Amino acid sequence: MINKLYDTSLSLLTDLYQVTMAYGYWKSGTAEKEAVFNLYFRKHPFGGGFTVACGLASVIGYLEEFSLSKKDIRYLRTLTGNDGQPLFDEGFLEYLANLELTCEVEAMPEGTVVFPNEPLVRVRGPILQCQLLETPLLNLINFQTLIATKAARLRLVAETDTILEFGLRRAQGVDGGMTASRAAYIGGCDATSNVLAGKLYDIPVRGTHAHSWVMSFDNELQAFETYAGVLPNNVTLLVDTYDTLQGVRHAIEAGRQLVARGHKLAGIRLDSGDLAYLSIEARKLLDEAGFQDTAIVASNDLDETIINSLKQQGAKINVWGVGTKLVTAYDQPALGGVYKLAALRNETTGQWEYKIKLSEQAIKTSTPGIQQVRRFYELTADGTPNFLADMIFDEERAAEGTVTMIDPLDFTKRRRFEPTHLSEDLLVPVFRAGKRVYESPDIHTIRARVQTQMKSLHSGVKRFVNPHTYPVGLEKNLHDLKTNLILSLREKEGVVGR
Amino acid sequence: MINKLYDTSLSLLTDLYQVTMAYGYWKSGTAEKEAVFNLYFRKHPFGGGFTVACGLASVIGYLEEFSLSKKDIRYLRTLTGNDGQPLFDEGFLEYLANLELTCEVEAMPEGTVVFPNEPLVRVRGPILQCQLLETPLLNLINFQTLIATKAARLRLVAETDTILEFGLRRAQGVDGGMTASRAAYIGGCDATSNVLAGKLYDIPVRGTHAHSWVMSFDNELQAFETYAGVLPNNVTLLVDTYDTLQGVRHAIEAGRQLVARGHKLAGIRLDSGDLAYLSIEARKLLDEAGFQDTAIVASNDLDETIINSLKQQGAKINVWGVGTKLVTAYDQPALGGVYKLAALRNETTGQWEYKIKLSEQAIKTSTPGIQQVRRFYELTADGTPNFLADMIFDEERAAEGTVTMIDPLDFTKRRRFEPTHLSEDLLVPVFRAGKRVYESPDIHTIRARVQTQMKSLHSGVKRFVNPHTYPVGLEKNLHDLKTNLILSLREKEGVVGR
Repeated sequence: MINKLYDTSLSLLTDLYQVTMAYGYWKSGTAEKEAVFNLYFRKHPFGGGFTVACGLASVIGYLEEFSLSKKDIRYLRTLTGNDGQPLFDEGFLEYLANLELTCEVEAMPEGTVVFPNEPLVRVRGPILQCQLLETPLLNLINFQTLIATKAARLRLVAETDTILEFGLRRAQGVDGGMTASRAAYIGGCDATSNVLAGKLYDIPVRGTHAHSWVMSFDNELQAFETYAGVLPNNVTLLVDTYDTLQGVRHAIEAGRQLVARGHKLAGIRLDSGDLAYLSIEARKLLDEAGFQDTAIVASNDLDETIINSLKQQGAKINVWGVGTKLVTAYDQPALGGVYKLAALRNETTGQWEYKIKLSEQAIKTSTPGIQQVRRFYELTADGTPNFLADMIFDEERAAEGTVTMIDPLDFTKRRRFEPTHLSEDLLVPVFRAGKRVYESPDIHTIRARVQTQMKSLHSGVKRFVNPHTYPVGLEKNLHDLKTNLILSLREKEGVVGR
Repeated sequence: MINKLYDTSLSLLTDLYQVTMAYGYWKSGTAEKEAVFNLYFRKHPFGGGFTVACGLASVIGYLEEFSLSKKDIRYLRTLTGNDGQPLFDEGFLEYLANLELTCEVEAMPEGTVVFPNEPLVRVRGPILQCQLLETPLLNLINFQTLIATKAARLRLVAETDTILEFGLRRAQGVDGGMTASRAAYIGGCDATSNVLAGKLYDIPVRGTHAHSWVMSFDNELQAFETYAGVLPNNVTLLVDTYDTLQGVRHAIEAGRQLVARGHKLAGIRLDSGDLAYLSIEARKLLDEAGFQDTAIVASNDLDETIINSLKQQGAKINVWGVGTKLVTAYDQPALGGVYKLAALRNETTGQWEYKIKLSEQAIKTSTPGIQQVRRFYELTADGTPNFLADMIFDEERAAEGTVTMIDPLDFTKRRRFEPTHLSEDLLVPVFRAGKRVYESPDIHTIRARVQTQMKSLHSGVKRFVNPHTYPVGLEKNLHDLKTNLILSLREKEGVVGR
């Protein structure tokens, strides 16, 4: 990830206002005030009912390498305000030059299924530091979570079929391709075409040839025969350069030669036309010729909706090649994750002051507190967990014993859980006093976690059309805290507003 | 760009099938065959009538640094086929380890206004090399061209207003943010919030404070006063944390203190609610209080359509903050650029063999040839060029004297140009024998080029709804070549298909 891909210091990969606010805190003497920020999203992407957390490995890389270089400081020194004078004091620049992160960070492990308003990452530490991290953390988590979720949706429709990700050429930049390959694999793809991602992230790579290979020969059969001769253990032939079914016949001819030499025709690939019709016809031709084991690979702007439709039409496709629509999350290319101040410790009293951002829309009002998420589950007959509900609570104010969880959008909807109920707290410690205390699992373990988590999710939640809303509530003490804060802020606002 | 951002070798940033095809060419003795590939797109993004070329600086960085490392080779050696045997010979890996690019590259300078089917980049050289470059070139050009085009559209609607890009937090990865900041500035934005982009690419940076600044104080007025005290030469106050118009009143109060100390209230920022109504009311409050020069900045999921609508509603907004919708090109997050083989030199005869990729849809059939684009223009009374038409021609087969240009989708539509007609050939030499022969202009020059080019474009072409199609045609010799190739391929296919 970060640590493997980039050379330059990425510590300035943030919005200028984070730096000007940092300056404001420093200058007004509040830089070291202890703050808590939560990173969360408000709505599942793609109109779905679940989201798959991803990007923590990049966040860890970013935080471990955080350190402003001399060049960074030199650059900040050049910035001026509207009077042509420097924006920042030398004292502040010196402070930044010596800044080492001391934050505590908790996060959802990558591959966890998550829901709106649950903190994916929680940062606690000096407000100046927390503030600087807002932009890079959002950048890294938003995109990778989006892509892992998209891939998990593809996995749902593809069932046990193979999914190949090959979006690099249309991805949003180098890193848009690299991190998409990683997140797509985590979410459920089986392999990528991206060789560098294969090398750096240990993802299986796949690929055979393009139209240009065929075009570079006098005819298609010669192109197929040459390819099969040269790479006999990796033969998937692209059959649509001229005429698809004719291409299948040529592939069969090249396949017979392969078989005669002790190899096999691994697959043919369809990249245009009516994929349902062509795959059914191609399957017939292949089967009649004795190539029952030859896979049919399909590509051409596929996404979960089109794959679903092709399957319903009886398409005989075993391998789905997905590119642009996956790596750019075409139908919703951004996750709207936010990072909100939730508590600030009063330096005089030592007490937490809880913070919310009001909004006209209740759903956009932030939740205060040093939040943790408790997932209640039951075990089914075969020992698989079945997720029941997630409860967001304040670690320092949670009730003992039986807990009550309240729907944040309808306070009359409540659930009770006994302390003996099976549960797991989802946020795990990642940094303590600025030092990493968490080891990211390898990518294959993360990928397996996604599938385990998905199995524990009720099928209604995984439905694409009008999915069931998985229950997420606030623990009663947190709910009451939030309600009181809203009321007192509205009161104050009202007084001021007169 | 590339050369500044990445440490690791990016030479494997390609699809595996480029490497397997390279192996196929090498193994079958055709690796050094001279080929010509064109990189082009088929349709303008966003339903528009123009596209702005961008990304060449990254391509140059990529090509200059191309060299497979020992680690790259070691990785390729680990790849196996379906029989568990290595995919590649040691001889091939040694060939790759010693590979130095010797290609010729021509390209449209960044900031050029371009049209469908025109080559943005043309690569000529050993087919093995051309093939390996397909994926990285598409990755780099597709995304940056998309974002520069989006920014140029924003510039059209914003007219002389300021546009700030602050999409980093929702961008597709680190590089999705970095290259978007650069392309957005080139396309017409005035500044970015992305500090690292400011530092690496010499883009002006802008920013003041977020909601969390206000929330960290006991009340809004105190937050504003503190900010204005600390950064008096950079005061744009975000007024919607609690109640927008009340926030404006607080900003005015902080502004009065600023003025008393010899500074100014640069702006206020609206980030939610009815931006048309609120900006009009805020303007009244500011003007009544003597803050006629204080700018009103607006943000909140803005794009060219919403800005256009707000302007029509009489919104009093001077500065547009655009994030997610710009840096992800939200309404069309990928440009469908392709890279097609167009000619291959016969090693026996020394003659070019022209190549096309057929398609059921005429628009998707590729054009053969060693293509160049000639832009015809006239000078208006004030000396501004007025673009008339672009003609794609084969450099080695172009007609002398009067040329005829034919519409590729309707061969009865023709235009004639005399040799004396004002014109410019758009593709410029970038690499010769693998060495760079082109110096990228600085970013501000590229940005200025976009605006000059846009001025030379007829307003109908720049319209968002049902834009006029700018005339792009094939020079008659190239048109005839293409037609004959299609006919002979269809013939051959027909024969084979019986």
